[in-house]
Amino acid sequence: MTRYDDATLRKALIAPDSVALVGVSGSAGKLTARPLEFLQRSGWQGQIYPVNPTRNEIAGLKAYKRVSDIPGGVDHAYILVNAEPALEALEDCAKAGVKVVSILADGFAESGAEGLERQKRLMQIAEATGILIVGPNSTGVVATTQDFICTTNAAFGARDIAKGRLAVLSQSGSVIGTMLSRGQAHGTGFSVLISTGNEAGAGVGRLGQLLLDDPETDGFILFLETLRDRAELVDFARGAHARGKPIVAYMIGRSAEGQALSVSHTGALTGSARSVSAFLRSIGIREVEAFETLIAAPRTLSRVTPVPSRPHAVTVVSTTGGGGAMVVDQLALRGVPIAGISETSRASLSAQGIPLGHGKLVDVTLAGARYDAMKAVIATLSADPDTGMLLVVIGSSAQFNPELAVAPIVDARSEAGPNTAPILAFPLPHAPESLAMLDAGGVPAFRSVETCAETIAMLFDAPPKTDTSVDMTLPRSAAKLIDTLGAGIQDEVTSARVMQELGVTAPASVVLDPKMSLPEDIPVPFPVVAKLVSSDLPHKTEAGAIHVGIKDRAELIAAIAAMKTAAQAHRPGYRLAGILVQQMCTGLGEALIGITRDPVAGPMITVAMGGVMTEIYRDSAVRPAPVDLAAARAMIAEVKGFALLSGYRNRPKGDLDALAHAVTAVSRLANSGRIEEAEINPILVRPEGEGVVMLDALLHVGRDS
Amino acid sequence: MTRYDDATLRKALIAPDSVALVGVSGSAGKLTARPLEFLQRSGWQGQIYPVNPTRNEIAGLKAYKRVSDIPGGVDHAYILVNAEPALEALEDCAKAGVKVVSILADGFAESGAEGLERQKRLMQIAEATGILIVGPNSTGVVATTQDFICTTNAAFGARDIAKGRLAVLSQSGSVIGTMLSRGQAHGTGFSVLISTGNEAGAGVGRLGQLLLDDPETDGFILFLETLRDRAELVDFARGAHARGKPIVAYMIGRSAEGQALSVSHTGALTGSARSVSAFLRSIGIREVEAFETLIAAPRTLSRVTPVPSRPHAVTVVSTTGGGGAMVVDQLALRGVPIAGISETSRASLSAQGIPLGHGKLVDVTLAGARYDAMKAVIATLSADPDTGMLLVVIGSSAQFNPELAVAPIVDARSEAGPNTAPILAFPLPHAPESLAMLDAGGVPAFRSVETCAETIAMLFDAPPKTDTSVDMTLPRSAAKLIDTLGAGIQDEVTSARVMQELGVTAPASVVLDPKMSLPEDIPVPFPVVAKLVSSDLPHKTEAGAIHVGIKDRAELIAAIAAMKTAAQAHRPGYRLAGILVQQMCTGLGEALIGITRDPVAGPMITVAMGGVMTEIYRDSAVRPAPVDLAAARAMIAEVKGFALLSGYRNRPKGDLDALAHAVTAVSRLANSGRIEEAEINPILVRPEGEGVVMLDALLHVGRDS
Repeated sequence: MTRYDDATLRKALIAPDSVALVGVSGSAGKLTARPLEFLQRSGWQGQIYPVNPTRNEIAGLKAYKRVSDIPGGVDHAYILVNAEPALEALEDCAKAGVKVVSILADGFAESGAEGLERQKRLMQIAEATGILIVGPNSTGVVATTQDFICTTNAAFGARDIAKGRLAVLSQSGSVIGTMLSRGQAHGTGFSVLISTGNEAGAGVGRLGQLLLDDPETDGFILFLETLRDRAELVDFARGAHARGKPIVAYMIGRSAEGQALSVSHTGALTGSARSVSAFLRSIGIREVEAFETLIAAPRTLSRVTPVPSRPHAVTVVSTTGGGGAMVVDQLALRGVPIAGISETSRASLSAQGIPLGHGKLVDVTLAGARYDAMKAVIATLSADPDTGMLLVVIGSSAQFNPELAVAPIVDARSEAGPNTAPILAFPLPHAPESLAMLDAGGVPAFRSVETCAETIAMLFDAPPKTDTSVDMTLPRSAAKLIDTLGAGIQDEVTSARVMQELGVTAPASVVLDPKMSLPEDIPVPFPVVAKLVSSDLPHKTEAGAIHVGIKDRAELIAAIAAMKTAAQAHRPGYRLAGILVQQMCTGLGEALIGITRDPVAGPMITVAMGGVMTEIYRDSAVRPAPVDLAAARAMIAEVKGFALLSGYRNRPKGDLDALAHAVTAVSRLANSGRIEEAEINPILVRPEGEGVVMLDALLHVGRDS
Repeated sequence: MTRYDDATLRKALIAPDSVALVGVSGSAGKLTARPLEFLQRSGWQGQIYPVNPTRNEIAGLKAYKRVSDIPGGVDHAYILVNAEPALEALEDCAKAGVKVVSILADGFAESGAEGLERQKRLMQIAEATGILIVGPNSTGVVATTQDFICTTNAAFGARDIAKGRLAVLSQSGSVIGTMLSRGQAHGTGFSVLISTGNEAGAGVGRLGQLLLDDPETDGFILFLETLRDRAELVDFARGAHARGKPIVAYMIGRSAEGQALSVSHTGALTGSARSVSAFLRSIGIREVEAFETLIAAPRTLSRVTPVPSRPHAVTVVSTTGGGGAMVVDQLALRGVPIAGISETSRASLSAQGIPLGHGKLVDVTLAGARYDAMKAVIATLSADPDTGMLLVVIGSSAQFNPELAVAPIVDARSEAGPNTAPILAFPLPHAPESLAMLDAGGVPAFRSVETCAETIAMLFDAPPKTDTSVDMTLPRSAAKLIDTLGAGIQDEVTSARVMQELGVTAPASVVLDPKMSLPEDIPVPFPVVAKLVSSDLPHKTEAGAIHVGIKDRAELIAAIAAMKTAAQAHRPGYRLAGILVQQMCTGLGEALIGITRDPVAGPMITVAMGGVMTEIYRDSAVRPAPVDLAAARAMIAEVKGFALLSGYRNRPKGDLDALAHAVTAVSRLANSGRIEEAEINPILVRPEGEGVVMLDALLHVGRDS
């Protein structure tokens, strides 16, 4: 379908030889005049072709009636006219062989039926021609390294646009301007900034893929309102990981109100915020909490990686007790372990007469004002095998004596041997000069304590590795069984059979033919549970269609009779498929395992304790499915309530490892396109070593996929 | 004990006529040279007396051997020598009638037995003389409005120290410098900055009290590592509230690591972070989450108050969908309701051709670039009765056209009628010029989306009002009963009697004499529970000393015999005080009510559901005790698990109102100095209208207070 290879599209996207500006205005100050104004001002070296049927010339350049009139072909077009004419212009671009088209207009998916119809036509053109479409509703594309400032965003009217090595992909058109402006205030520039608009054409994932091999880009910043191209995003993330280029994302919609706005604003579906976060995390995209971290973190992530042989812990050195304690507090709140100072380092530094404080904070107080002392502390601690990373919290010297404050840090770093711990810094005061010197000296430094702590937490929080040696596909036998099922919700016997094919244990059971009398000998040991199998009785307890604790054959006969009477009264004429007799099992506790499909994040697996407490405390763990055993174990560890089954206050331990195996097994259902939803609820957790037993299961099968 | 009234002390603290610098150095650049250097540079008009026995003259000023040699008396002394000589100097200051003494030295409470001894001597001097001591371990006192820069903190070496109308009280000496520096970068200055050190002398509360009537101070910023003067802090907070001067605090120690550092660093006790937060909140001190909010919030809080007749909701207007959605998301995450736009305003603005978006965000898109349109939107919405506050999110115009971006906001505000909604602003880009113009125009504006959302949440979150019409003292009968008790943990019968005196219902019960045979007729209806009353059997179940569900007299006789046998086997020779026979009660659920004494925050009342789930999910509510009925109800609403007793999924409702009454009743025990701890666990919650019944109680009585 794509006529152009990625390198060709990348060049046309960020380094085209020529650009057509369709509908560009000649009136300075008008929004649609900006791209031309900015391109001329930046000194872009490519050919600019104004396209405007009402003008012969704009800003000193010959104007064309349409793109297809331009001689010699055009790489990139930015269409600035309204929705309907934009579609016509797009068709004309297709005819003229334009490779990349950005579209400003709104009035597509976000605006009702008419818009959706337009969106469909737009996508058909993209499909048929292989044109890469940015937008619609895109404020454009900027590649600072090329001086290609092809945008309507007013922020790019700034005189000196800082170049940098991070690419910004934003679903909000205004946010590319916000990033430029705030980045500049932080001393951070960008290589590329793209407003992806409503992504009827290319999504964040596809555009990210194209930029993966841009030699000017070391990392990516995403501003997201939703996710549209999940598969492309997975490939983008994988490619970025392989190249050591971090991806950091800010996602709107953590609140219900924010989520509702994303829907109304972008016309997109939204998934549950938790599922989307779990999905991003699973593919190694780091979601930030504070907006400022979006600017501060990626540069640090692209330069610093933990040394594998070193512990997962930070040593904090400070010249100020209170400021240092604040930093330690913020790190600890985000789960970063604090190393403190080892006995060896303490002895060595104390011998040099350097005070070190009592607690885990290495508080050198006034000694921090001496170059030699401070350098010795930093050199000793960064070489200490107990240090995972070293964070230097600088006091007011950062403001008044940047050289004095910064030199020992930068020098200690440059003289450090191999495998020393990475060094980072946080100045307590407002100290832009020190920040710039630290940055130039290769020491990542932070402006706010929250951003500092959040970024360090990210450095340690490596993306989870999937064990690719394990077969996560759906077992053939289960796939075959699912193929035989009709669409709809399956009864518990069928649902349990599928789960058994996946390897989940069910209690000994038999389904009796309701028309036959009870056999002399049933293959299930008493005590048993008996249930009527009927898709007309979804609520067994209310219908009187379940009896538990049946001790012998006589009780079973009586129970079956009683259930039939009750069910008939509850739902006259109900259809009875069978009578399920199950061995009665006991365990230490119960759990729930479920598969759902999030409209944005895709198939998800959930594990929880089940019951009202799980609902009230939202105590569950969720991951994109399938999951391997390590991920399943991590999920179980995340659910607080499972503490009750792992030796809490000397209670007996449950077989949570067997539960993890069951989670993995069920998660493989994600590989069947026909499974809409699946749930085992409850699954009984028996004592350690005795496994888990599924008591009830439910499968929702969709139409053929 | 205090010889000086507050006005005298305030003057000597921040506006003294003379200051003695004890141990001041003449060598430029030395730490102990700074106060003199800063005072001379700032042009302070008071008399400076260097005190240094080894010099005749320092920096052009006559030097004295000791403070008592200075003719004419001294208002304020800053002692810069080490701990032991500092104590001698303090004694000399006392002799010389100095009113306020700040002390730099460490080596007091934070450094072991010797330091504690010094601290005791210091406190005795303060007590005996009425001197106000700041520190020890204080980097000094700064009053910018007086040019009184009496500090060793290097940050005050800055050329232009911004004056402002907020006072900073910081337990960390370096943080006064951090606040100065970061405040200046925010365009925020301060009236007073005091490093309170380890507060052996005056604490944050006492110093705050002294500054309450400073006409130059409109609000207070606290940087806290612990709380030392709780009673003084309560008075300070009350006084500040009465004067409409907000207090905002940043507290270290939300993490266990941070808390441990506060202990080692300051030698102070620490309470539980939750108790301390609940305490601060209860007295109307606003705790901030982000450090930047500490700088940004108080100025807004001192200028904006919600209009009482207006709803508790924010309307967000934006020119940018994505940026506006981010702000809405952050507000909603902090529980701020979003108002959206009313039908009336929508109709009126639509008639003027202004687009308004679909969702709750009022997205005016490009119309925001027109002065008239934007002003109309702001005027209409701020007058709309549905608007509680109006937040304007400004796009890139804030950066490039500050006048255009700011003018419609400032003009709409200045032309607004009485009782219009307060107007606030947040520029998406880095826009210092717009921020300054907004501030000058009376429109609070924010630098980060998190600070904006946190501050607005604070504006709506008014300090709880205590119902002073309700008598919260301990009932006389309960007080009398407590007076008769010996120190130690009381048995359940005594504990329950005290709770009954407070008005908590107990089941019908009788205590039988173990030596007598069972009476024919006991005054408790069957079924009953029987327990052995014995302080030797703290764990009744393990000792076999409790039987439940006893249906008649015969079963009761058998149960008593069985319990005695079991208890004798469990604990031979145990003492038996009686046999408690209680009516067996059932309810919809259980709760726990407890009183504890936090070493920092004082007496606290807790309510929870009890049991392991409460422990695992930390699902409890805590407040300083006593609490009135409104607070008790708020506490119950805070406990998530009580959802199960308030109609969750059509379950029957429990009598949570009766539970609130019981919480209030028990909380009054805080008024008895003898109660160390008290707990009712469980208290049975019966159906609505049927009350609560205490099943077990425990009281820990201390020595006579």
